[in-house]
Amino acid sequence: MSLGNLCRKDVVTVKPGTLVKEVTKLMEEKNIGSVIITDDKEMFGIITDRDIALGIVNKDLNPQQTTVDELMTHNFVLVLREDIGLYEALEQVKRSAVRRFPVVDINGNLKGIITLDDIITLLSKEMADVASIIENEGPLL
Amino acid sequence: MSLGNLCRKDVVTVKPGTLVKEVTKLMEEKNIGSVIITDDKEMFGIITDRDIALGIVNKDLNPQQTTVDELMTHNFVLVLREDIGLYEALEQVKRSAVRRFPVVDINGNLKGIITLDDIITLLSKEMADVASIIENEGPLL
Amino acid sequence: MSLGNLCRKDVVTVKPGTLVKEVTKLMEEKNIGSVIITDDKEMFGIITDRDIALGIVNKDLNPQQTTVDELMTHNFVLVLREDIGLYEALEQVKRSAVRRFPVVDINGNLKGIITLDDIITLLSKEMADVASIIENEGPLL
Amino acid sequence: MSLGNLCRKDVVTVKPGTLVKEVTKLMEEKNIGSVIITDDKEMFGIITDRDIALGIVNKDLNPQQTTVDELMTHNFVLVLREDIGLYEALEQVKRSAVRRFPVVDINGNLKGIITLDDIITLLSKEMADVASIIENEGPLL
Repeated sequence: MSLGNLCRKDVVTVKPGTLVKEVTKLMEEKNIGSVIITDDKEMFGIITDRDIALGIVNKDLNPQQTTVDELMTHNFVLVLREDIGLYEALEQVKRSAVRRFPVVDINGNLKGIITLDDIITLLSKEMADVASIIENEGPLL
Repeated sequence: MSLGNLCRKDVVTVKPGTLVKEVTKLMEEKNIGSVIITDDKEMFGIITDRDIALGIVNKDLNPQQTTVDELMTHNFVLVLREDIGLYEALEQVKRSAVRRFPVVDINGNLKGIITLDDIITLLSKEMADVASIIENEGPLL
Repeated sequence: MSLGNLCRKDVVTVKPGTLVKEVTKLMEEKNIGSVIITDDKEMFGIITDRDIALGIVNKDLNPQQTTVDELMTHNFVLVLREDIGLYEALEQVKRSAVRRFPVVDINGNLKGIITLDDIITLLSKEMADVASIIENEGPLL
Repeated sequence: MSLGNLCRKDVVTVKPGTLVKEVTKLMEEKNIGSVIITDDKEMFGIITDRDIALGIVNKDLNPQQTTVDELMTHNFVLVLREDIGLYEALEQVKRSAVRRFPVVDINGNLKGIITLDDIITLLSKEMADVASIIENEGPLL
């Protein structure tokens, strides 16, 4: 099972220059905490609800006029290829220090996103599955 | 080991009426994503960076004049007693649908906070410990 | 949830002096790997399928005449009280180096047994539960 | 990281026709619970300490004269290729109902062995690693 099958494919994107108020509307409607900024050729960055809260308020910006370009994190520390396995992804993820990773195809096109929380969920389900095989099969005692 | 020992005791609190801009400053300085609103007698609610992003922008509020009272989540779905164990806490946590829980003493005074992420971390460390006992002790093969 | 509720209560016991061949018959019928030796007043030890294989063959004993007393592990490194929680049990279990633990009431009477594998299974189910709360509740992205 | 790197490479093998008493000696010396029966061209089966305990005693065999051929499990429900990843192995392992799996190269030569307990240990270490990234990186609260 490759990362392309395991990641979230319903990733939400906006174009550079999009107003922050469009993004917070999307975040509320779709119950998401981050959006990727891309023009479909290139990925420019990512913006989270936290980036917006701290950016708008601490820098005293007008949320109705500010664009994502001013508050997003530019580039990505780590981009994961869709054709690697979960375990290979783990090796890479452990060396970075961020929480969200775009998943791309061989040409660098965005295919999905995966978070550390997603990975924990995948691992814990695997673990519960393996544990229940051990349990069902005995002898445990 | 009771929840009082396992929770984060460095929880950040502000009084009702605090301006949102004071809270986002605290969130940036202390690298936290939520703050509890209390007057030291009573807990009134909790506010997250996400509450601020969506509240300020989507409701078109002035971040320099808005107070936490307008954006916080009032009351708590679940408050955990500091003298219960992790497993007992899990039983309660699984029935709720939120991510952060205040930990209180017998009189209801705030003693700390615990999140689902903290619990996952605690469980995974326990699991790695138990797995390494099994590994060291053999026979595994 | 106390250990008394989490442990296996269908623990199989035999009296001191029982022939090994009675025990292996029980192990096969009930699909278990260990049996506790007790006279209902006192617990004397535990015997596993491995103890029997290595004991009978390496010591060249007659399996039809040997009793459990000759091959069992005498006493228990750690006995767990039924009224403690899982997390408290973990603290104790991590300091020992064995794989199976009798669970007893306040008077020392055997109530059940718990293994490291059981504990891994319990922890992994908890973890999958917590992970699925995080997943369902969002925002993860 | 392929299964070839994750499995135990110190797997112990004996030839068909080996006496059970040779095997129990190996099991005691090397602190292992199972041995693979192979003539280096072909794998014929696996024998565990439990197979020996129940086989010798319940069938009333003479342990000094019995060979592994009489008590081993013939063939393997599932053999895993060394060049697959852990996650791919998990997909296969979950569909079988046994606890130990030989790991082989492209020609079917034995390269190692992996157990469900090993897999649980690998997964729980991964999980603790990912959880500690989440913990260190904040904001958790």
